Amino acid sequence: MASENTANRFLVRTQTASITLPPEGFVLTSGRALKQLDIAYETYGTLNEDHSNAILICSPLTTDAHAAGWHEGDRKPGWWDDMIGPGKAIDTDRYFVIAQNMLGGCKGTTGPSSINPDTGKPYGSSFPKITVEDMVHAQRLLVKHLGIDVLEAVIGGSMGGMQALQWAVGYPDKLRKCLCIAASASLSAQSLGFEVIGRKVILNDPHFHGGDYYDKPSRPDGGLAYARMIGHITYLSAVAMHQKFGRNLRPGMEPANFETGFEVESYLNHQGESFVKRFDANSYLHITHAMDRFDLESAHGSLENAFRNSQAEFLLVALSSDWLFPPEQTRQLGKTLLRLKKVASVVELNSPHGHDAFLLEVEHLSAVIRGFLHQVTQDAPRPLPRRVRNGGASVEFETLSDMIKPGSHILDIGCGDGSFVDALFWTRDITGIGIDRDLDHVVACLEKNVPVVQANVDLGLAFFDDNAFDYAVLNRTLQEMKRPREVLREILRVAPRAIVAFPNFGHVDNRLALLRHGTMPVTRALPHHWYDTPNIHLFSLNDFRRLCVDEGWVVEQLLPVARSSRSRLLLNLGFRNLGAEWVIARIGRRTDSRIP
Amino acid sequence: MASENTANRFLVRTQTASITLPPEGFVLTSGRALKQLDIAYETYGTLNEDHSNAILICSPLTTDAHAAGWHEGDRKPGWWDDMIGPGKAIDTDRYFVIAQNMLGGCKGTTGPSSINPDTGKPYGSSFPKITVEDMVHAQRLLVKHLGIDVLEAVIGGSMGGMQALQWAVGYPDKLRKCLCIAASASLSAQSLGFEVIGRKVILNDPHFHGGDYYDKPSRPDGGLAYARMIGHITYLSAVAMHQKFGRNLRPGMEPANFETGFEVESYLNHQGESFVKRFDANSYLHITHAMDRFDLESAHGSLENAFRNSQAEFLLVALSSDWLFPPEQTRQLGKTLLRLKKVASVVELNSPHGHDAFLLEVEHLSAVIRGFLHQVTQDAPRPLPRRVRNGGASVEFETLSDMIKPGSHILDIGCGDGSFVDALFWTRDITGIGIDRDLDHVVACLEKNVPVVQANVDLGLAFFDDNAFDYAVLNRTLQEMKRPREVLREILRVAPRAIVAFPNFGHVDNRLALLRHGTMPVTRALPHHWYDTPNIHLFSLNDFRRLCVDEGWVVEQLLPVARSSRSRLLLNLGFRNLGAEWVIARIGRRTDSRIP
Repeated sequence: MASENTANRFLVRTQTASITLPPEGFVLTSGRALKQLDIAYETYGTLNEDHSNAILICSPLTTDAHAAGWHEGDRKPGWWDDMIGPGKAIDTDRYFVIAQNMLGGCKGTTGPSSINPDTGKPYGSSFPKITVEDMVHAQRLLVKHLGIDVLEAVIGGSMGGMQALQWAVGYPDKLRKCLCIAASASLSAQSLGFEVIGRKVILNDPHFHGGDYYDKPSRPDGGLAYARMIGHITYLSAVAMHQKFGRNLRPGMEPANFETGFEVESYLNHQGESFVKRFDANSYLHITHAMDRFDLESAHGSLENAFRNSQAEFLLVALSSDWLFPPEQTRQLGKTLLRLKKVASVVELNSPHGHDAFLLEVEHLSAVIRGFLHQVTQDAPRPLPRRVRNGGASVEFETLSDMIKPGSHILDIGCGDGSFVDALFWTRDITGIGIDRDLDHVVACLEKNVPVVQANVDLGLAFFDDNAFDYAVLNRTLQEMKRPREVLREILRVAPRAIVAFPNFGHVDNRLALLRHGTMPVTRALPHHWYDTPNIHLFSLNDFRRLCVDEGWVVEQLLPVARSSRSRLLLNLGFRNLGAEWVIARIGRRTDSRIP
Repeated sequence: MASENTANRFLVRTQTASITLPPEGFVLTSGRALKQLDIAYETYGTLNEDHSNAILICSPLTTDAHAAGWHEGDRKPGWWDDMIGPGKAIDTDRYFVIAQNMLGGCKGTTGPSSINPDTGKPYGSSFPKITVEDMVHAQRLLVKHLGIDVLEAVIGGSMGGMQALQWAVGYPDKLRKCLCIAASASLSAQSLGFEVIGRKVILNDPHFHGGDYYDKPSRPDGGLAYARMIGHITYLSAVAMHQKFGRNLRPGMEPANFETGFEVESYLNHQGESFVKRFDANSYLHITHAMDRFDLESAHGSLENAFRNSQAEFLLVALSSDWLFPPEQTRQLGKTLLRLKKVASVVELNSPHGHDAFLLEVEHLSAVIRGFLHQVTQDAPRPLPRRVRNGGASVEFETLSDMIKPGSHILDIGCGDGSFVDALFWTRDITGIGIDRDLDHVVACLEKNVPVVQANVDLGLAFFDDNAFDYAVLNRTLQEMKRPREVLREILRVAPRAIVAFPNFGHVDNRLALLRHGTMPVTRALPHHWYDTPNIHLFSLNDFRRLCVDEGWVVEQLLPVARSSRSRLLLNLGFRNLGAEWVIARIGRRTDSRIP
């Protein structure tokens, strides 16, 4: 992953901030206090004059303050150097970036291996239990120590993502953007299970000595290594492990003592051995324990309560094959934020790399983070798009937007690059959220500051409560849905009104093609062959109207769209189902609907 | 799971067979030998006169010989009592069932805690390494000891499934049926990883003493418990753990020493504690090590070589949410067996319970095992089915079967209850395999001795090599496929000829419905509404013929099927695309195809 170009290396060094504390010390959630608080940190980029361009990086479980750049003489750059630097996604030409070692760590920030000022010896077993809240509290003190009040963004992956969420909850007006990557508001039962075992294995190590091993000849390296190995498997995916190791034997490995000789064992041995060289068992116990206990829902009664006051804009990124923090948890969190009407986007990156993808999927993650951070802010509206969709036939912007009352809040299903929502915002004072599956579209939305949920329609609609919107727009994709009636029902659950544009299979050309030739029509509105068309549920204007009648939906407007002169002639003669190439319909919920 | 009806309890007891060994002892794969071999076993049911009704049960990792029935005074029956007993899936009214404790175990069969006859003390660290091959060798000696040569079936789940496979490989003519459930020909890299860590944790326990702990005051209980906990998580699914525990706190639990107080931790503690009471750490090391090293592919050069000589019929059952033995491994094994032209069926049970489903999904697993074991053997053909499919309109058996040359081997895609393949076998000397998604259909096929692969079409066809069949039959489902052209291409890969029956969208009723009313037709051949039809790719006789021309496929026969008098009149007048309600086509691969 590391950049090979030494010419571009920027040298950095880790500093230590000794935080000035009140007489009672740094008071922890537990009520206990630390008399002294040191925080190891690094900074990249330059703080601007009004101190408004600072970004805080929250690090994963076991990384240190060295997130980017190079230490003099090192062979590898900081752990997230792919993401942070001049011109990179977290652009140090624009931002002043702060990375730090978390409270409880062993890399310069106060933790169980630090000297206890009361005894002059390492804390060891006397180090008090800490929480993620305490960690973020310490980060807040560091940020203030550096002369910054409000952060432009807090960005974290894995456990760092939990910290980013805690920032938005604990300091709701002290960050403008919250980026939570491959993390959630609490660990799942399965992930908890593995964590729990990891700690037991450390505690059972013959060299643990109740945590006071710092003056002993040996440390609980076995236990710590095995705990790390368990964790390490949860960072990878089954597919990634299969591809990486399969059942290959490690050449030259002499399996001893119930070893297998497989590459996967040799790799795990290596992971364990290198981990114990750089990490402290007590820190591992304290930090994982804090992570396991972190639960915004139980701490605040509900996720809604937790995030209610937050003023941040949110970007949540899940990784498709992550089983430590499964995407479903991210979806649930996104749902909560959207329910609270927060500006929030939810992205699900497709990757085979499991949880580790947040360190490996540099290109896609960069595009998403860059898009969200560097939104093109503007004072004047962009030029109006005449057509809303990129590529293919398209329905005019004016026709659609005239159907929507100014000042409304809309959902644009299959929103493409977000142009439609963006244009409605600038021209009609309409706000909106998009749903789209395509990552390029999602990034384009983020760049326009159009909140977006990356999902297919079925999953996407489940994000939203009843009546979350005034209108839902489904432009040209109803015929591609597996279960179009259920999709329409869902749409009229999340909004009282829907605007639906679809190709009319009752158009004269389609009928004649079938009648004359007995073949499935291939036309401008339906340009595919029968065997590769995405249009799997063809229907006509009349079919649609009939469904609305059957379901009790109110057809408020039904605009036939025609381009050819024959079509227009038919429309003028009143033959709407014959003349309409396309139909744009505005429909409303049934009048006796139980949705209030 | 245990039967509550004490009246039906049948009492059993564990016996021990002291196997008579040659002077060199029981020689292991490693070349070392055991001087004495005891095997603990139980039997249920009665051995018939010609000793042909014996079934061997191979047990999972840590279970014992007590698979079914009740021990006097016990509160629970044997571990697979749900499956084995009078009238149950493994029916002790029909079969003589043998269960046993595996070699290396600690429940009466020779293992590391047994007395070493050379020293008069437990083997401990001097117990030699064993393999799955050795375990199965010992089972073979037990079976012979009981006076049985050929087994009716060997049935095993999890590690027992691996042993069942080893039976088919090692004793290819000594079992008529091989049932492998939730197992595979080797462990995946991810599963290996967890196993490897479990053993390290045991070896690192302060009370392990190099394996010679039997005369010590304490045993390596911590390490063994933690290894078991790791394993236990792999037996459950993430979904099951979420449903079972979520993040609930255990009432009354006082979290000590970095414990969390969560139910999941309390549950794991309990699993660990109860396990160490019933199991021996050395046995766990030896048995898991044997399981990890088991690999039929590397042992025999290829899976094909391993199974080439086996005369058994195979039933492979995968569990959808099993991540210890993922279904993909079962599919690969099934593919190999089908490539070797073995009689093999592959079932994938849908279950949220992970690997444990093989103990929990009693109803579905019973139906599958029962169907496979109790195949209705018959000497005379069943009455001929006039129509092949259950329910809905159907294409006549005669028409379809006349298109297939007697003596051929066919694939029936969407095979339903297997009647078609069964009837072809009895009337035309045609053999075949079915593919179907529906479990009831799969069970019906197994009962008829029609080999079946449970899969959707796309996955199902990937099971088969080029030219695996003479014909593939796709009766009435092409229009339901997502990518019909690709499916046809795949079909003409696995067979040089395909027989395809489909509803003709060019039929006069469809054309007139659209022409007159401008609505999607609802007819006898296309009985659904546009919004809930499974027929997502409508096409006509002419559309189909055109595709064949474009793809270079040879249309050998194209039979229009008509029922109404109007349709028949049109056909008689030569208007095939107007008159055909249905079409049955036989097509052949393009003449310049590169598939030989």
